Amino acid sequence: MSVAEVEPSRSVLRRAFSILDAFEAGDVELSLTALAQRSGLPKPTAFRMAHELVSWGALERAPAGGYRLGVRLFVLGERVARHRDLRETAMPFLEDLYEATHENVNLGVLHGHDVLYLARLSGHRSSDVILRVGNFLPAHSTSIGKALLAYSSGDVVRSVVTAGLQRLTPHTIVMPGLFTQALREVVERGYATNHEETHRGVVSVAAPVFGPQRTPIAGISITGRAGRFDVNRLAPAVRTAAASLSRSLASVHSLTAI
Amino acid sequence: MSVAEVEPSRSVLRRAFSILDAFEAGDVELSLTALAQRSGLPKPTAFRMAHELVSWGALERAPAGGYRLGVRLFVLGERVARHRDLRETAMPFLEDLYEATHENVNLGVLHGHDVLYLARLSGHRSSDVILRVGNFLPAHSTSIGKALLAYSSGDVVRSVVTAGLQRLTPHTIVMPGLFTQALREVVERGYATNHEETHRGVVSVAAPVFGPQRTPIAGISITGRAGRFDVNRLAPAVRTAAASLSRSLASVHSLTAI
Repeated sequence: MSVAEVEPSRSVLRRAFSILDAFEAGDVELSLTALAQRSGLPKPTAFRMAHELVSWGALERAPAGGYRLGVRLFVLGERVARHRDLRETAMPFLEDLYEATHENVNLGVLHGHDVLYLARLSGHRSSDVILRVGNFLPAHSTSIGKALLAYSSGDVVRSVVTAGLQRLTPHTIVMPGLFTQALREVVERGYATNHEETHRGVVSVAAPVFGPQRTPIAGISITGRAGRFDVNRLAPAVRTAAASLSRSLASVHSLTAI
Repeated sequence: MSVAEVEPSRSVLRRAFSILDAFEAGDVELSLTALAQRSGLPKPTAFRMAHELVSWGALERAPAGGYRLGVRLFVLGERVARHRDLRETAMPFLEDLYEATHENVNLGVLHGHDVLYLARLSGHRSSDVILRVGNFLPAHSTSIGKALLAYSSGDVVRSVVTAGLQRLTPHTIVMPGLFTQALREVVERGYATNHEETHRGVVSVAAPVFGPQRTPIAGISITGRAGRFDVNRLAPAVRTAAASLSRSLASVHSLTAI
């Protein structure tokens, strides 16, 4: 008896998920060949799984013959309750910050060693999309990540440092000693910065948002182009928005599934 | 040979999807019993499928023992390319409209006989969440739906009318003759309204957004409470935002998968 016969459901689901996982952030359409290669499935199997996923709506056929992720996944994704209360409570404060600064405003949370971006407001100035909702970036290279790690337990910080501070640009802080020093400075100043540490030419400033038990649960950041970005002007605005959201969350009786 | 043996993958995937489909808009957590009931699966099967979905991240175990939709679905949902260019191009115009009015601003598209909401901006005034991104509402009862149907082909309108204009409130327009008359008025005025036709106490005003070929592809609306909502003041702002977005889309060379 093969493993597939012993555990048919696990096997089939895993194959279906490997098709969906073939889509990376920014992908629009994948050919059957690409689906097969990325999922590691034989082409006939990939075709059969893709066909099943189309019939449910998780995939859609593109006019050119390839496959796209389906609208049903967008709808289902919006039903994920985790972080939803946070996003909804945060929205007016993000709006205020956008209105006061007209810069790109982001909301993110720690997810393992990464920051997961939950919301983003952007205006006419920011036509170049670098960051998307649903994207992950390494926590150590982002302002939101540093703002959250600075107020996290020693265990959490050690775990990130031990995993290795990957160099993304020449400006990424990769030395553990310098990194923990940077986190101490975040606590002293009340905000974190990212000077081209994730992407060349992109800078940001972030402040932590605290939950009902004063645990750091999210970060608010402003992202912009190096050169025309004034941290001294923007930091107080970001801190104010984060503090206002923290105050609002403290009065929420039951925050679902932060 | 049973059907399950002939088509094992179809059968397993269908069962997995029926578990995910058990979650409706607004649900946070479902017990195993609820999952089994709503999916129509025997409880042991529901348990096994849920277990598999947890291992992939499509579901998460809640502290109280139930199941929630998992963050992986949120991440995957944000990778759906369909409507993404539209959402990203629209965002600055939605921001402008929010800033000018401080009302709830929404972006939606026709999806069959429904409106699917793609984006929403809301401020401090609108703490009561009636509408969420990813939600569907019957097109005939919403301002965005009427704004789009008014500029759609006769076939599309007939299809909606033939399916039946379901009464959601005492104010819903359910007579086909009155409904097509209402659509003619939308074209005359350049905007559509919804006077408590979907929810009691909620009114809205919407204008259509046109794509490169002057086809109606989306609608922008403002939603608010009846009584303190001034359609005459808000309609020009909504029309301006929709026209500006249409102009911007006309200059987009390849709009992916509208």
